[in-house]
Amino acid sequence: MGSKVGEFRKKLKIVDVKGGPNEGLDRVGLMIVVAGWVRTLRAQSSVTFIEVNDGSCLSNMQCVMTSDAEGYDQVKSGLITTGASIWIQGNVVPSQGSKQKVELKVNKIVLVGKSDPSYPIQKKRVSREFLRTKAHLRPRTNTFGAVARVRNALAYATHKFFQENGFIWISSPIITASDCEGAGEQFCVTTLDFFEKPAFLTVSGQLNAETYATALSNVYTFGPTFRAENSNTSRHLAEFWMIEPELAFADLKDDMACATAYLQYVVRYILDNCKEDMDFFNTWIEKGIIDRLSTVAERDFVQLSYTDAIELLIKAKKKFEFLVKWGCDLQSEHERYLTEEAFGGCPVIVSDYPKEIKAFYMRQNDDGRTVAAMDMLVPRIGELIGGSQREERLEYLEGRLDELKLNRDSYWWYLDLRHYGSVPHAGFGLGFERLVQFATGVENIRDAIPFPRTPGSVEF
Amino acid sequence: MGSKVGEFRKKLKIVDVKGGPNEGLDRVGLMIVVAGWVRTLRAQSSVTFIEVNDGSCLSNMQCVMTSDAEGYDQVKSGLITTGASIWIQGNVVPSQGSKQKVELKVNKIVLVGKSDPSYPIQKKRVSREFLRTKAHLRPRTNTFGAVARVRNALAYATHKFFQENGFIWISSPIITASDCEGAGEQFCVTTLDFFEKPAFLTVSGQLNAETYATALSNVYTFGPTFRAENSNTSRHLAEFWMIEPELAFADLKDDMACATAYLQYVVRYILDNCKEDMDFFNTWIEKGIIDRLSTVAERDFVQLSYTDAIELLIKAKKKFEFLVKWGCDLQSEHERYLTEEAFGGCPVIVSDYPKEIKAFYMRQNDDGRTVAAMDMLVPRIGELIGGSQREERLEYLEGRLDELKLNRDSYWWYLDLRHYGSVPHAGFGLGFERLVQFATGVENIRDAIPFPRTPGSVEF
Repeated sequence: MGSKVGEFRKKLKIVDVKGGPNEGLDRVGLMIVVAGWVRTLRAQSSVTFIEVNDGSCLSNMQCVMTSDAEGYDQVKSGLITTGASIWIQGNVVPSQGSKQKVELKVNKIVLVGKSDPSYPIQKKRVSREFLRTKAHLRPRTNTFGAVARVRNALAYATHKFFQENGFIWISSPIITASDCEGAGEQFCVTTLDFFEKPAFLTVSGQLNAETYATALSNVYTFGPTFRAENSNTSRHLAEFWMIEPELAFADLKDDMACATAYLQYVVRYILDNCKEDMDFFNTWIEKGIIDRLSTVAERDFVQLSYTDAIELLIKAKKKFEFLVKWGCDLQSEHERYLTEEAFGGCPVIVSDYPKEIKAFYMRQNDDGRTVAAMDMLVPRIGELIGGSQREERLEYLEGRLDELKLNRDSYWWYLDLRHYGSVPHAGFGLGFERLVQFATGVENIRDAIPFPRTPGSVEF
Repeated sequence: MGSKVGEFRKKLKIVDVKGGPNEGLDRVGLMIVVAGWVRTLRAQSSVTFIEVNDGSCLSNMQCVMTSDAEGYDQVKSGLITTGASIWIQGNVVPSQGSKQKVELKVNKIVLVGKSDPSYPIQKKRVSREFLRTKAHLRPRTNTFGAVARVRNALAYATHKFFQENGFIWISSPIITASDCEGAGEQFCVTTLDFFEKPAFLTVSGQLNAETYATALSNVYTFGPTFRAENSNTSRHLAEFWMIEPELAFADLKDDMACATAYLQYVVRYILDNCKEDMDFFNTWIEKGIIDRLSTVAERDFVQLSYTDAIELLIKAKKKFEFLVKWGCDLQSEHERYLTEEAFGGCPVIVSDYPKEIKAFYMRQNDDGRTVAAMDMLVPRIGELIGGSQREERLEYLEGRLDELKLNRDSYWWYLDLRHYGSVPHAGFGLGFERLVQFATGVENIRDAIPFPRTPGSVEF
């Protein structure tokens, strides 16, 4: 009674064999075990080729088998088909084929779990629309496996960037009685009268992050947020992840510099660490994406005021669907024109927007009509980041709440931050799935998150 | 028009000055700027001492000022009080006092934001109960600042551990139509008929994680989960963060080894990286916590079966409130007895529980009455981690659903994983706030999360 628990050892994955600089040639001669799922099986007269994938990287392990391999009868009898899980022992040998440097010469194969003939992800290409109805199986495709790995890398790079720069991760609450934007439709949470007052799903952790920033200086949130907007587009999710840093003793310039450094860091990170997946996107999803991202990682971003942006759009030779006029919000077509055409693919930061089109908490500029807001626009996506310096002056903030007929009492704790040691502070919000779209080229935001929630869609 | 954005540079924080191995002595002679909040101010006849904190570490910067410093009139007139935010320029000098190695000789002080006399966090000690009503200001206290930093370190260490071991972070959905545990009370989400069917807040991301594990091999979730249990205890939250790794081609032994390695990694990480905060907890919150955690980081964990655990509890000289009997779940008192008394403070992993007290998805053992489940018990907390090998055999899983009168159709996608290339797999769940309690010694789980949600409490 009371035995000891053995050491945790990572099992060998395909990426450990083929992921090195010489794509596995240094492993030649080793006897290894690979466990994964069959992508394809080709039986020729004397030899059978099985492509096995374990999700650790895009590459399959090509396994070559002759009739003397142990377990060959399972192959011969047709039990091992696409989608089946197998366990293969073999020797790493140089590959005869041109697609890979090494392959596995099989000594032994074990069928772990067979795959029904109804397996919906056969070799022939299936549409991404169809795959959304199979969200539980789509990570077994090249595209969704790659998206999952790059999404993971972007998340980890996000944590690395902020941790290396002294930011503290804060979990802002999901269930809340507040409405940060004072506008967005919120989901209501009910279970009898559990909370004894109306409770909603958060639209942003910013107000909460401000309370921690004004104690710990620099913080960030990374968690799910919600919008009950009934918009069935390729750009909107009802549930999405947000990254919201908040910097104390900082102004809009610091905020823009932080957003720039952040984006360049995470883009550089995936270019350096997800080469195989990025090559796949570059070939199959969006030609030129690697060049586009390299530009972002290397170039200085352009910065101009909203007023200048409006002037530039008015002078543009392009016909826009929506009106360009000082006081109106920029539409996606305007944003994309600025970053894609006016500044040739370079991210553009537009600042100092009219106060009427921005949230109550943004700091009023001295001109009395604009606020210290900034949006970062990037090619293909338009607005990727939205930020601002926050109004740290109590009288201005209260005045703005009154103007917008928002109830001061609901914001008592937020106003308290201006009663007790208020400081200039600033932050921004970034929708993580937009970043995944930007970094992978997938067109529909529903393909940038494992289990998308949209109007009418809550399956899985 | 179109200027360039400047470089993001981290501003100097107190931790950058005092956080080094010689506590700032290498900075002596440097002129620096510190920005933060006044913790205390002591005016003596010829010299004034101001303790400033910026949240970057537990330590304040002691600032020493004489009447020739610029801005001294603001000090003299009483404008600068506890809670005010200030900006101080000065020279780092060796400290006369015994509490710190260096202090700041002030050249210039600027009041950034004054603090109302009503500031609730004055020097005198305030209760943690009171501070829960001031959740927006409590991170400005030593205890909650330290908890926030250690919580952050635990989160980052979690990501580091899994990333270094080849796990992919997956975001499991928050809004869901499924009920993983088939038991827990769930919060309902409503907004007209947005999702066209009943929608709830997730109680666990495990079933979703299994879909990705059976494609990518090793994955983990780290996100919020919810329980609508109406229990007003110091151990329960309605909203809490969970970490749920899932390992493909793995059994219960692999699962236990992973859980052990994970816990030892994160505990070692905070002992190495949060020394000042851990010393604070050791002195003020739980004497001996550093020894307790060092034991966990270094010792082999004990492993025994549920059946053996019951036998051991029956033989124990201790009187328990709850019945000890094969078939009954272990209560907190039993769990703590095992880890704290029977095995002297060493974590204990209990495995192979009766199937009747465990969830439907756990793998049935050959004895027909137990399942391949494991709970990791640690001192002070009891159950910190709960995991299992999952039932990968379709017929057993369907049989169990039927026995429990759960509807097979609701689990169609979960069953699909057993139709197509099923593999042995295992995982566990860890309540992050329990880990924070375990690592900091704070007694009430409401003090282990920035904004706790409990029955009747949804403020902030």
